[in-house]
Amino acid sequence: MQHYPEAMNRLIRSLCRLPGIGEKSAERLAMYLLQAPDAEVSMLAKNISELKKQVNICSCCFSLSDEDKCRICRDPSRDAGLVCVVESPADMAAIEKSGGFNGVYHILQGLLSPMDGIGPADIRIAELVKKAAGENIREIIVATATNIEGEATATYIMNQLSPGHVKVTRIASGVPMGGELKYVDQVTLKKALEARYDV
Amino acid sequence: MQHYPEAMNRLIRSLCRLPGIGEKSAERLAMYLLQAPDAEVSMLAKNISELKKQVNICSCCFSLSDEDKCRICRDPSRDAGLVCVVESPADMAAIEKSGGFNGVYHILQGLLSPMDGIGPADIRIAELVKKAAGENIREIIVATATNIEGEATATYIMNQLSPGHVKVTRIASGVPMGGELKYVDQVTLKKALEARYDV
Repeated sequence: MQHYPEAMNRLIRSLCRLPGIGEKSAERLAMYLLQAPDAEVSMLAKNISELKKQVNICSCCFSLSDEDKCRICRDPSRDAGLVCVVESPADMAAIEKSGGFNGVYHILQGLLSPMDGIGPADIRIAELVKKAAGENIREIIVATATNIEGEATATYIMNQLSPGHVKVTRIASGVPMGGELKYVDQVTLKKALEARYDV
Repeated sequence: MQHYPEAMNRLIRSLCRLPGIGEKSAERLAMYLLQAPDAEVSMLAKNISELKKQVNICSCCFSLSDEDKCRICRDPSRDAGLVCVVESPADMAAIEKSGGFNGVYHILQGLLSPMDGIGPADIRIAELVKKAAGENIREIIVATATNIEGEATATYIMNQLSPGHVKVTRIASGVPMGGELKYVDQVTLKKALEARYDV
């Protein structure tokens, strides 16, 4: 990196800190920015520096929001009695893109992970339990990941909510759509066989 | 993208314009920046916006520089009689990293490409011809790429410089070091056989 001017090296070092950006990519990005139109470069810098100031956490579902409550929590056409519990806003965005859900969300902002010192008090479980006690909630779908932390978190949540009046469900596991069986891993196939349904 | 707050969407759109960054990567970067320490985020924004202001073009070799002349052109220990001609500052950085060169550079800032309307007047060929006329220049190594534009540019430069007093050479082509012959393409193998040398 000592072959570039100092301002270039500083930018390359900053870019290297981003996830998935190595030194080669950072060099390429810096070189691109050096040649890009001024307006595009200053717009990028402005959008980066204003991001945190303008993004809030929704007071209701803990997702990202422009205002106190997010677009989905404000939307009267969404079914507020059906709550989908996910780890992060990115998971919420993935479900929204699927178009298969018209309820509201509850973002845990993490998963239980005793190895990393993340316990129930560190994620939004107490808020979920309180929300589930509300009269208008009919069903809570636990849609955490199907890895170890996700399953552990789902089990914990289901135990916490079990004596309540609310129906608690877990998102289905199985063969991904468009997937060939020979490429699906054994654990998923076993799950898919156990969860077989009548046609 | 409509599932994120507007500030987030704006940043994702800006990041998508960068080379090699698709929508998924842009989302991941934006999500990272939202959670990254304030100091890191503002440092990145600052480094981006200051890049163009602080980086100059060297008046001697047309590389990137902090000052009027770049570090290499200013360095008295470099052999100013040996000039390596490359397409871009990135190529120069690659040769510097190799540690195999102690001369100076001449950055063309592009390659001839009639299809894209780039002719000899659009890149730094006139400056190279003028430089080659200087008394202290002994050898000019043409180290443009070995693709069509690079070869065409090399041929053009070698023709322009041929009647001069300066020795003009071309960087060698052949089997990459550490490469197995069975994986090397035919054109490269042919070149490597033609350029065989006595041991």
